[in-house]
Amino acid sequence: MLAAIVAVGSELLGTERLDTNSLRLTALFDRYGVELERKVVVGDLEAEISRVVGELIGRVDLIVMSGGLGPTSDDVTREGVARALGRSLTPDAEILRGLEERFSRLGWRMPDANRRQALVIDGATVVPNPVGSAPGLAIREDRTQIFLFPGVPRELDGMTVATLEPWIASHSGGIARERAVIKVAALPESTVEERIAPAYEEFGREAITILANGRGEVRLEAVATGSSAERSARLTAMVSRLTGLVGDAVFTTDADATLEQVVGSLLEQAGATIAVAESCTGGLLAERLTRTPGSSSTFLGGIVAYANTVKTEQLGVDPALLERHGAVSAEVAIAMAAGARERMGSTYALSTTGIAGPEGATADKPVGTVHLGLAGPDGLLEHRALRLPGGREGVRWMSTQLALEMMRRQLTRSALDTPWAPLHQLPQLPREGGR
Amino acid sequence: MLAAIVAVGSELLGTERLDTNSLRLTALFDRYGVELERKVVVGDLEAEISRVVGELIGRVDLIVMSGGLGPTSDDVTREGVARALGRSLTPDAEILRGLEERFSRLGWRMPDANRRQALVIDGATVVPNPVGSAPGLAIREDRTQIFLFPGVPRELDGMTVATLEPWIASHSGGIARERAVIKVAALPESTVEERIAPAYEEFGREAITILANGRGEVRLEAVATGSSAERSARLTAMVSRLTGLVGDAVFTTDADATLEQVVGSLLEQAGATIAVAESCTGGLLAERLTRTPGSSSTFLGGIVAYANTVKTEQLGVDPALLERHGAVSAEVAIAMAAGARERMGSTYALSTTGIAGPEGATADKPVGTVHLGLAGPDGLLEHRALRLPGGREGVRWMSTQLALEMMRRQLTRSALDTPWAPLHQLPQLPREGGR
Repeated sequence: MLAAIVAVGSELLGTERLDTNSLRLTALFDRYGVELERKVVVGDLEAEISRVVGELIGRVDLIVMSGGLGPTSDDVTREGVARALGRSLTPDAEILRGLEERFSRLGWRMPDANRRQALVIDGATVVPNPVGSAPGLAIREDRTQIFLFPGVPRELDGMTVATLEPWIASHSGGIARERAVIKVAALPESTVEERIAPAYEEFGREAITILANGRGEVRLEAVATGSSAERSARLTAMVSRLTGLVGDAVFTTDADATLEQVVGSLLEQAGATIAVAESCTGGLLAERLTRTPGSSSTFLGGIVAYANTVKTEQLGVDPALLERHGAVSAEVAIAMAAGARERMGSTYALSTTGIAGPEGATADKPVGTVHLGLAGPDGLLEHRALRLPGGREGVRWMSTQLALEMMRRQLTRSALDTPWAPLHQLPQLPREGGR
Repeated sequence: MLAAIVAVGSELLGTERLDTNSLRLTALFDRYGVELERKVVVGDLEAEISRVVGELIGRVDLIVMSGGLGPTSDDVTREGVARALGRSLTPDAEILRGLEERFSRLGWRMPDANRRQALVIDGATVVPNPVGSAPGLAIREDRTQIFLFPGVPRELDGMTVATLEPWIASHSGGIARERAVIKVAALPESTVEERIAPAYEEFGREAITILANGRGEVRLEAVATGSSAERSARLTAMVSRLTGLVGDAVFTTDADATLEQVVGSLLEQAGATIAVAESCTGGLLAERLTRTPGSSSTFLGGIVAYANTVKTEQLGVDPALLERHGAVSAEVAIAMAAGARERMGSTYALSTTGIAGPEGATADKPVGTVHLGLAGPDGLLEHRALRLPGGREGVRWMSTQLALEMMRRQLTRSALDTPWAPLHQLPQLPREGGR
């Protein structure tokens, strides 16, 4: 089944509002395997509404329209659809009675304007509105079923449950499609795509969607259709294959889990705690680690060491290191992590120091130069040098993303796998004995 | 000028994402009086993209398309538009060189997939992309100008400023409508609306829009049309009247300025520095204060004291205070601020401690109970007790919002004016002499 969503309302073409109703409808479509061809937003103009509907009739199986059924003169969805179908509008005595009763129950006289809400397109079925004054309409034209619903979310929801879902259920094969999600950290979209190429061949190009969020996370969505048993078997096979192809960079197959939540869970499983020492990320790493409820069981604290005096006094970074290597250096990153771990008594500590920009760059340390440090038990001291693209916000976010990934890799005992850390550019420090 | 916006991306037809880029474009259209005929969202399907473009060509003056210019095989906007126009695609040597250089600057080899980004529709002009790898395209067909831009907001913004706005400016009657913005912190929308009621009567209901972001900030927009001189005079009058009605809670009339930027500027003007001590906000306050470029001139550092040991050892909070009043108390908030100020040597220090939830609540300290502390020169020690609505994220954000507003009020010497700090519920602490 092929569908289109048409939202009517000039306010949805303005500078402030989006058609959020469509998300209520796409969730329903997804479940029943209804394919959405397009979404259109059109203003309160009869000719435009008519044109948009005309472009879709006969080509899609289902058009769901929302908005423009109210009583005011700019509510012209009925008129626009009638024009597209070449049908006329007739007042419906029963709707009129219902409207009048509704008003009299509230102790009001019905304004004349509301009489327009009783107009019905010839041949249409009236869709009751249990929670508002505007009834909906259902019309068939050729292969296309059209529903006209109000734009008020509560009213649209009521009609979706009472009328649209039963219609879709009986005209589709029932629940038809399920999704599995695989999330990947610290790899660019193009790298992930190269790795999963064999899965495209095996399962079909349309079965797999790749989505980059532009923030160091790629989301793979695997879609399976067929019977319940077939869907389940296929999703299991796809997730297993995709995970195998992408490798250890897969951090979760839970659609709602974030990288910081996964790191928090791994710390908890390991009975470990964490502290952070941040310069360029300015608190963002601590903030991400504390977003999750219950994070106080693994997160002890953080020191945002923006000024060098804070690095020396609160983290115990040797002033000579700052003098010799600069604040943005492998040596200082490691000293910050070691200092945070020692001072806050955590199992692990992560550190960030870098040039987020736009100021502060030098010839050999351009904007995007970032050093990450990791300190842990048994003298564990690791370091990564990064060259990150993006502006200030991007560099800050990606620094935390890669620091979290560095921690995750340590906890899962797999090697960090990212093109954003070109280690050859700087000498890898030897592991030193801990304090 | 009549325009249409086409967003390309199957993910925008899914259950999670909306085309938010269109709001960036409608703001521009609004300014130049460009009429938006419709918005369309279409999936990554060449035939569908071609059909949508075909329906618009020759009928609108401007089509702005976003998305589908990436390197992966589902990025087919170029192909769809070429098909609609009956033109072919040719690789552009210069774009290819630029792409390869971009990758080599980051120390990577360009994946073969990225070669597709060098394809240009015959007769199109290449639109440079200063911040990303995908260049845009500009094509003329009949009366219709088509722009193909990337879907990444930052990249789209860059091209909008550098290419789209100049094009619209020279093909429309110039700026037709101007807006002024007034931003208000720490007051609910309903309170702001009550205060500005006289301005609705004076300037007309349609001239003023009130928008709450649900995060402790209300934005008032004043709109003026007419000649440049008329617009300017009217906006000046409206801003002056609205600011007078709302009062000191107005923190800026710069549409792009954030509360943290305003606080940063005020600190800079005062030659003052700041440090923070955070518990429930987990680093968010430091993160907000360091978002602004150049914040290192006023922000020295922060201590995220999640564990009580961090509060005592890194901030010098007396363990007896924690024992007697609990970590979420006026006394601990003040001790945290005083400790951060002393240890980091800043002019001012802000602190937060509270119950962000969902766990940790007690009978007398429900979720949303937050204490803010402020320490400053001459023994300045202030405190606010808050009862904040919203879940974990909301409580954390609003705590930082009110802490920043507390700092701003101190720097502008005006009294904090917010219903979220019901001071009568807890005793106001006397100002004490410094440590």
